[in-house]
Amino acid sequence: MSDAPPTSETRLSDSALAALDAHWRAANYLSVGQIYLLDNALLAQPLRPEHIKPRLLGHWGTSPGLNLVHTHLGRVVCDRDLDAICVWGPGHGGPAVLASSWLDGSYAETYPDVSRDAHGMTRLFRQFSFPGGVPSHVAPETPGSLHEGGELGYSLAHAYGAALDNPHLLVACVIGDGEAETGPLAASWHSNKFLDPVHDGAVLPILHLNGYKIANPTVLSRLPASELDALLRGYGHEPLYVEGVEPFAVHRAMAVALDDALDRIAGIQRAAREGGAVERPRWPVIVLRTPKGWTGPSEVDGLPVEGTWRAHQVPVADVRENPDHLRVLEQWMRSYRPEELFDSQGRPRDQVLAHVPTGPRRLGANPHANGGLLTRDLPLPELDRYAVPVERPGATLHEPTRVLGDLLEQVMRDTATRRDFRIVGPDETASNRLQAVFDATGKAWQAQTLTTDEHLSGHGRVMEILSEHVCQGWLEGYLLTGRHGLFSCYEAFVHIVDSMVNQHIKWLKVARTLPWRRPVPSLNYLLTSHVWRQDHNGFSHQDPGFVDHVLNKSPEVVRVYLPPDANTLLSVADHALRSRDYVNVIVAGKQPCFDWLSMDQARVHCARGAGVWEWAGTEDGSREPDVVLAAAGDVPTQEVLAAASLLRRYLPELAVRVVNVVDMTRLLPREEHPHGMTDAEFDALFTRDKPVIFAYHGYPWLVHRLAYRRAVHPYLHVRGYKEMGTTTTPFDMVVRNDLDRFRLVMDVLDRTPGLAVRTAPLRQRMEDARTRHHAWIREHGTDLPEVADWSWPRQDG
Amino acid sequence: MSDAPPTSETRLSDSALAALDAHWRAANYLSVGQIYLLDNALLAQPLRPEHIKPRLLGHWGTSPGLNLVHTHLGRVVCDRDLDAICVWGPGHGGPAVLASSWLDGSYAETYPDVSRDAHGMTRLFRQFSFPGGVPSHVAPETPGSLHEGGELGYSLAHAYGAALDNPHLLVACVIGDGEAETGPLAASWHSNKFLDPVHDGAVLPILHLNGYKIANPTVLSRLPASELDALLRGYGHEPLYVEGVEPFAVHRAMAVALDDALDRIAGIQRAAREGGAVERPRWPVIVLRTPKGWTGPSEVDGLPVEGTWRAHQVPVADVRENPDHLRVLEQWMRSYRPEELFDSQGRPRDQVLAHVPTGPRRLGANPHANGGLLTRDLPLPELDRYAVPVERPGATLHEPTRVLGDLLEQVMRDTATRRDFRIVGPDETASNRLQAVFDATGKAWQAQTLTTDEHLSGHGRVMEILSEHVCQGWLEGYLLTGRHGLFSCYEAFVHIVDSMVNQHIKWLKVARTLPWRRPVPSLNYLLTSHVWRQDHNGFSHQDPGFVDHVLNKSPEVVRVYLPPDANTLLSVADHALRSRDYVNVIVAGKQPCFDWLSMDQARVHCARGAGVWEWAGTEDGSREPDVVLAAAGDVPTQEVLAAASLLRRYLPELAVRVVNVVDMTRLLPREEHPHGMTDAEFDALFTRDKPVIFAYHGYPWLVHRLAYRRAVHPYLHVRGYKEMGTTTTPFDMVVRNDLDRFRLVMDVLDRTPGLAVRTAPLRQRMEDARTRHHAWIREHGTDLPEVADWSWPRQDG
Repeated sequence: MSDAPPTSETRLSDSALAALDAHWRAANYLSVGQIYLLDNALLAQPLRPEHIKPRLLGHWGTSPGLNLVHTHLGRVVCDRDLDAICVWGPGHGGPAVLASSWLDGSYAETYPDVSRDAHGMTRLFRQFSFPGGVPSHVAPETPGSLHEGGELGYSLAHAYGAALDNPHLLVACVIGDGEAETGPLAASWHSNKFLDPVHDGAVLPILHLNGYKIANPTVLSRLPASELDALLRGYGHEPLYVEGVEPFAVHRAMAVALDDALDRIAGIQRAAREGGAVERPRWPVIVLRTPKGWTGPSEVDGLPVEGTWRAHQVPVADVRENPDHLRVLEQWMRSYRPEELFDSQGRPRDQVLAHVPTGPRRLGANPHANGGLLTRDLPLPELDRYAVPVERPGATLHEPTRVLGDLLEQVMRDTATRRDFRIVGPDETASNRLQAVFDATGKAWQAQTLTTDEHLSGHGRVMEILSEHVCQGWLEGYLLTGRHGLFSCYEAFVHIVDSMVNQHIKWLKVARTLPWRRPVPSLNYLLTSHVWRQDHNGFSHQDPGFVDHVLNKSPEVVRVYLPPDANTLLSVADHALRSRDYVNVIVAGKQPCFDWLSMDQARVHCARGAGVWEWAGTEDGSREPDVVLAAAGDVPTQEVLAAASLLRRYLPELAVRVVNVVDMTRLLPREEHPHGMTDAEFDALFTRDKPVIFAYHGYPWLVHRLAYRRAVHPYLHVRGYKEMGTTTTPFDMVVRNDLDRFRLVMDVLDRTPGLAVRTAPLRQRMEDARTRHHAWIREHGTDLPEVADWSWPRQDG
Repeated sequence: MSDAPPTSETRLSDSALAALDAHWRAANYLSVGQIYLLDNALLAQPLRPEHIKPRLLGHWGTSPGLNLVHTHLGRVVCDRDLDAICVWGPGHGGPAVLASSWLDGSYAETYPDVSRDAHGMTRLFRQFSFPGGVPSHVAPETPGSLHEGGELGYSLAHAYGAALDNPHLLVACVIGDGEAETGPLAASWHSNKFLDPVHDGAVLPILHLNGYKIANPTVLSRLPASELDALLRGYGHEPLYVEGVEPFAVHRAMAVALDDALDRIAGIQRAAREGGAVERPRWPVIVLRTPKGWTGPSEVDGLPVEGTWRAHQVPVADVRENPDHLRVLEQWMRSYRPEELFDSQGRPRDQVLAHVPTGPRRLGANPHANGGLLTRDLPLPELDRYAVPVERPGATLHEPTRVLGDLLEQVMRDTATRRDFRIVGPDETASNRLQAVFDATGKAWQAQTLTTDEHLSGHGRVMEILSEHVCQGWLEGYLLTGRHGLFSCYEAFVHIVDSMVNQHIKWLKVARTLPWRRPVPSLNYLLTSHVWRQDHNGFSHQDPGFVDHVLNKSPEVVRVYLPPDANTLLSVADHALRSRDYVNVIVAGKQPCFDWLSMDQARVHCARGAGVWEWAGTEDGSREPDVVLAAAGDVPTQEVLAAASLLRRYLPELAVRVVNVVDMTRLLPREEHPHGMTDAEFDALFTRDKPVIFAYHGYPWLVHRLAYRRAVHPYLHVRGYKEMGTTTTPFDMVVRNDLDRFRLVMDVLDRTPGLAVRTAPLRQRMEDARTRHHAWIREHGTDLPEVADWSWPRQDG
């Protein structure tokens, strides 16, 4: 990198600048056209009310800035033959990104009826924010994008995720100064401590200060220059500033800054890759300060618009009805001199396209932004190598996530060269007992290391930062560019990304309907340190509601698994890691848990998603059960089996069926989820009219919400977590929430017709056990020996 | 403020330092004791296995740092007679805050059986993380705290919220370097652009760099000094550094830094309050760098512990079983020289308490941390002054949130001097049409202003930052210190704070059980720009699931209201703003909406929470209805009334009952929510066996989850949002989700026994209307005139 940055003159000719300006004007023209015009796209005639859309929708304010970035990125992509994509943080500026995609031809390639001519321009305008057309934001429908800019905050983390393990990729990322106020974005700046200059690509943040949000100035735009500079240097960046109002001055400054930034990036990568530099580099950041709604109407009805919050959406309204406003719009659009930009057939003139890349180098056509094109199947080892041996159910204990960790270690080994698998988590990979992976790879870390540190590595593929938002953002960016991954998280705190997973599910739902978008690897959650085993951290760490949250979303996208032991976890994880275009939520414990099923049994059980555990019940196949004991989740499964064991001992004549549910969506009707059971299947499992005592991992009403249409529903009684949490023993947690074995037995007695009277002594025995429990834990601080030492099948007792 | 900070010698005598150190050692001793000891609290005997707890739980790593801060805050509170509280970000270091509360006597005042003597010390130790005892984290049970440190990220926003409108309060805030990596915390630094040095108190952030999280170094602790300094200056702070390992050196440096910080704060406040300074001040921040698990075992089993991540929780384990470990623990505890700290009765010696404040100045007893003590009723004006006149239903249109804005303006006026009401929102107050409040107060803003800005004010009480996290954190801190507020938010994006509201609900649930915690004003959400009226922003802005999320939580805390028009919104908002210890979720539109009820009718309807709208149905009271059309939410109400109108016209012989639900929790059984209806009430409203077509604002299965136990449930058919969203017209949104009037009529025809055959032509007419709709919007981009112009009662057809 050079000390004295070259001046613009040495880099760009006046004609090159003019060509860039022409592209920018063309994109601005097309952006305005999308917001306003139904017809007369080329302004061949004077503008009339009937050319105007009846509903004016869209965000103009950010569009000229996005267009400027797009224009100049095109130039450097051409000049340097860069492999580059851009994450458009202000993605609500949809018109801008659509305009440039239309200009570079990628739009017409994706949607042939929106051709690069007057006909297509009219369609481009008309379809925007129009029923049956395209959304107003950058969205899955937008070629070249992997980011929806509606909910702000995730652009920079997405950009880093896209750059990981793509050493030759440049990911530019436009960050709006509104978005920069959000928590996730503010945290994402520190991602540069995790970016490996050897194996990862580069992220070039472009902080766009246009000064205003919807109605307020932005914080960063109102900092003194020295404070903003300190902030960006504090984030570990080298800031480069571009500021102005006069277009050619800004073009020059932007060209200089981009060249400077790319030279610095090239220098950093060369130093690391060829020179073996190990010190954390200071990556460049560009600060672009231009007016909001730049080149739009400076005033409307006597009020300033350009450069103010009034330019945020539609800067001049009521254009159909108000002739003055119509005139403002026409002057505005003609100020771009469309006749210089498009020929009479509406095709962009050569000058406009002079610095626009071709083929897959176009930002609208780079395959990294349609990552499924690049996805390779993840190499997954034979599960039997990792399975725990199970000769009979409940004879041994394993920590399920630790067993999974051994498998993940192998996946890390098998992807050591390909580098297309990552694990992210908020400082919890080891706490969640996946630490075997550290035998195969390290934790990504570019900052200072000390001798007391463990497993840190400049080239590691486990990513840990204490921000669920950043973890999620990194992983989304990684997946959407076609690679594979897993997010391991404490169950309670995954709610932190509720809103992010909403947006990702929405993305996948729409992407699945677009044939040109190729399926990408699924977003896989491993939720552990779960509600029943956070007895030491207490109430704040106890929340099983993420499952409820995702099950509200598009059923074609979401799947929820509750494997009851180690081998079923292996089977479910294998299935999830092979899948595409889903969000898979796996809830599994890290504490020692009984092994119930052999690997073969686990495979069959997980493939069915729900099934009878004949060995645990008393059915002999000759008659219907008197009662069904069902469980979903590892702790509920244990309590149900303990309850079944008590019933077998004390009430051997009762026919008890034990059902285990791994895949929660099996409970839904077939019409509502692709995994849903038919009524016949459901009835065969749960009966139509026998009492069903269902012990569920989370909030009990979820099971009712899934099963309310079933015949047996009036007889369904669900136990689960009901917010009775604190710091206490594991068994006390289930007692407090009425999920314990004694309560389940009482439920059976209470709800099975004809049992209540003759089993009063047994009921009393169960009550006594709970009373004994309460006394014992207050005295000893530990669980009753009969509970702590319990195993299946319980013979004494 | 002085240019040359005084050295420690000028401020503190050696004996004062020794006393501070004694307090610190005492707090450290008590912290360790809580984690480990069942008995032998004073170490009067050699430590034996039976003195050790059977389960060792708690977080030692952060505790010595928290104790240091507590010790030194006590000194400055005494010296300066400060009114101060502290927000303990690393609140998982529960033992530390409990220790200091026990030392200052506030603990025994709150819990008399945990007295400040050997008996009480034993109880203090034993109860910690013990069944039936207290949680391991700082929690509602902890005197002097308004913050739970389990889910990290919210300390600084809470601190700012507490400081707002408390001009004489100092809010210290310890921020762990783990927490500092989270998004919410990273965004919260910019809160200083919103803190009014005249009317607000001061926040003193203390960034505690102990270097490690659970298993990893922290990002901020591994930045070069210059980068960290730049970052903090970039956040707008003046950093003061305290660093060391040798206790007395750190005591000296901490004392100097605290005095320096408080002098600077006093100077800033004086300049603003007396000198009229208007430039944004650079508030001090203290950076405290001490080892994790400082003064704990430096090595265990040959591995370094002090100063590493191994000190995070229990630094030496298996103490009962391992005699070497028992010896390590005993040496560690005796290193604090407990005999110097406590007399033979276990009472803290005078030296320990030399710099501990008394009475309400104690951090454990300051009333601001038990804000209900300070709460005054909010002055709420007569609703009739703001009500819209309604002579007959559906004759006029108003924007409900705009009407509410007029009322809120008056509340702002009436609290202009008291300053105990704030509105927070992510840049959306005006967008949500509450802008009338700006006639009474401004938007808080301390940064640069330009002439194009509107409504900014150094002293404003509307708080807008584009971070839902920071808005929520500010408001929580404000409420927990006893003041009132409202969070106005786009409905979809309130999911961003799902996890924060979880934690707040947990706090309230526990606080309600503690008689000494006085009720605080409720957390009130106004969710607007809702799913049915984000047709312009599209799919990313469409999500009604927050209601589902909160309804999973403790029923005694959460309440959900869906007022169908302007006057019902007034009534509901009035009710919410008067309430205590709840989380109230109000979902209401900002678009023009028909006025259905007069103010008097609205009051009655909202008080009942759900009721029959006789005027909308065809019942004459003489017989049961043939069908019930129910609605919850403004858009569903409109569609239900339109459907009722169609039925009245085309099928006048059908007895249709129209039910409107304002309070969603009314649908729950009485046993499950205090607002729940008895079965008799429910059956009287919805019948036991008539078809109920329920048009609900959000995800339809929520209604099933609330009503599955009711007799009529098999006949209940719910329509709602099912993720069919995009940028389109308002009516197309309801059509896409099958919530439109035509579909509702078809549902009535399909589900009312005996109707299907004879009403086939009507059904076809409805189908035709939907077909006409589809064709019309594709052609015109607007809604069918018959829909756009519809009003109640529809006479034509």
